Amino acid sequence: MIECRSVTEVWEAIRQLRVRGAPAIGVAAAMGVVLGVRDETESDREGFLRKLDDVCHYLGTARPTAVNLSWALQRMRRRAQSLPSAHPSEIKRALLEEAKRIRDEDEAMCRAIGRHGEALIAEGVGVLTHCNAGSLATAYYGTALAPLYTAHEKGRRFRVYADETRPLLQGSRLTAWELHRSGIEVTVLCDNTAGTLMKSGQVDLVIVGADRIAASGDTANKIGTYPLAVLARAHGIPLYVAAPSSTFDLAIPDGSRIPIEHRSPDEVRRGMGALTAPPDAPCFCPAFDVTPADLITGIITERGIIQPVTTERIREIVGQQESPASVAAPG
Amino acid sequence: MIECRSVTEVWEAIRQLRVRGAPAIGVAAAMGVVLGVRDETESDREGFLRKLDDVCHYLGTARPTAVNLSWALQRMRRRAQSLPSAHPSEIKRALLEEAKRIRDEDEAMCRAIGRHGEALIAEGVGVLTHCNAGSLATAYYGTALAPLYTAHEKGRRFRVYADETRPLLQGSRLTAWELHRSGIEVTVLCDNTAGTLMKSGQVDLVIVGADRIAASGDTANKIGTYPLAVLARAHGIPLYVAAPSSTFDLAIPDGSRIPIEHRSPDEVRRGMGALTAPPDAPCFCPAFDVTPADLITGIITERGIIQPVTTERIREIVGQQESPASVAAPG
Repeated sequence: MIECRSVTEVWEAIRQLRVRGAPAIGVAAAMGVVLGVRDETESDREGFLRKLDDVCHYLGTARPTAVNLSWALQRMRRRAQSLPSAHPSEIKRALLEEAKRIRDEDEAMCRAIGRHGEALIAEGVGVLTHCNAGSLATAYYGTALAPLYTAHEKGRRFRVYADETRPLLQGSRLTAWELHRSGIEVTVLCDNTAGTLMKSGQVDLVIVGADRIAASGDTANKIGTYPLAVLARAHGIPLYVAAPSSTFDLAIPDGSRIPIEHRSPDEVRRGMGALTAPPDAPCFCPAFDVTPADLITGIITERGIIQPVTTERIREIVGQQESPASVAAPG
Repeated sequence: MIECRSVTEVWEAIRQLRVRGAPAIGVAAAMGVVLGVRDETESDREGFLRKLDDVCHYLGTARPTAVNLSWALQRMRRRAQSLPSAHPSEIKRALLEEAKRIRDEDEAMCRAIGRHGEALIAEGVGVLTHCNAGSLATAYYGTALAPLYTAHEKGRRFRVYADETRPLLQGSRLTAWELHRSGIEVTVLCDNTAGTLMKSGQVDLVIVGADRIAASGDTANKIGTYPLAVLARAHGIPLYVAAPSSTFDLAIPDGSRIPIEHRSPDEVRRGMGALTAPPDAPCFCPAFDVTPADLITGIITERGIIQPVTTERIREIVGQQESPASVAAPG
């Protein structure tokens, strides 16, 4: 737990990945805006709004590619703009309410994903997951992990297998930690072991999160998701993506257009501190990969499960309302 | 470099993976037998042979899956048995010669694999490999890496991609190191990134080693090989296994009968020293997986390439002479 008492501390927390996971970043940024204008003088409305703009701009630089970050900041700005004649003290109150609303909506979104997905988690099943899309990535109990928490609350018993998720090991460090703590049976494995686990018959389904989903359903998620999808298909195991509708970027037609961040080679070469490769050996280290829609059985959203994953079904379920993607899309 | 001066040190070195790679284990075990009986009294022939048996049995317990281990030990035993009336001092000399012969044969075997496989390494290709089946796994320049070294000696240029190979990182620590040192262009990647690399069109073929090959061609190799084979097939990329005929175990009909060693959970939980998972979280950590023959394009042996990989072709090429497998087979 980190307590942030200034906008600088929030910026740092986002920048240094102390807050990570798209939904959690959005909530933190909204709260950061409140902190950023909290001590601003209330006598000068124009000055107050300029300060608000500065704060939003500053927070937006913490992780320039995170779609939920710019979405949350845009939403805070628009809340202020919706009060054209309000006194700064009123705007402050409205901003705090808006930030809490973003948090509450995120929690409600997680609960809804859990509700829609929990039927997939039958008694006794084995579920494989990758990276962390749990309570450490959102305001409540996660996206990919929400169906698991919901099934657990209903008393169902099942096994979870957590890919450790190289290079940063979010699976072993975060997912295994939070599930273990909740009393859910969890086994850790190296990413390269999932194929053997599937072949052994112990995996009944795979659930992963998403960083961005194109209009076609092609899904960018943590590196290592795509091979899992190929393996799941080869073994006849269903693979579900769990993500809020805000993760869809309908302006992007398919996965080939999703920009992929490449990380520092030292995340691979110095995984947990020690040097484990020649220091000057080049590394290939994309942070995400793209899983084509045809390898995805269904996408669990807060509005229901999109299955089969087609452009039409996606438009039906998430095309109708404002999402971070459509807000953040240029033009 | 580790100098072992006792059989216990050799056992430890094999157990702790200080010597690893099937051929290198065989050579080390043979040398270990020599060390184990070196100081034995030479006056009592029966006592000497009992001691030899004990030493072989003891060394055989160091690693369960490695067929070269039991093969080399059996060969040393048979060398002693072939001298029914010899004095223990004569047997000692014969054992030392036999151990050196195993080493020399291994070197000749690596060179032959290189010769047979080098034509696959065309100018400009991209080759993906997993784990380490190079000079650090054999008495000379390896099995999977031998075709690369041979092509390199012929002046051909190509790119190698080395899977880091969790949990022990033999790919980034050994393969990348030895190729880099030899002037071969090598890029390191996390195991979970191979799928994206293949999809990007940068991989023309995959070459891996083998720990044990069944009569059907099903191949046990370092964990993470099987998913590579599934991915290679999905991307239309040929996958070759490079292994000496001694790696075949024709007494084992298919891969389901190959015993798979499971390693300590701490190799996963404390992979790079630091604890990276809940300390009491269970881990699934088989050391090897089995790739079915139908996912293998060809097997490069010192006697030629077995292609297609069928029981009949395997018997033709490796079935006619004593192999570790047929020696080690019970009955």
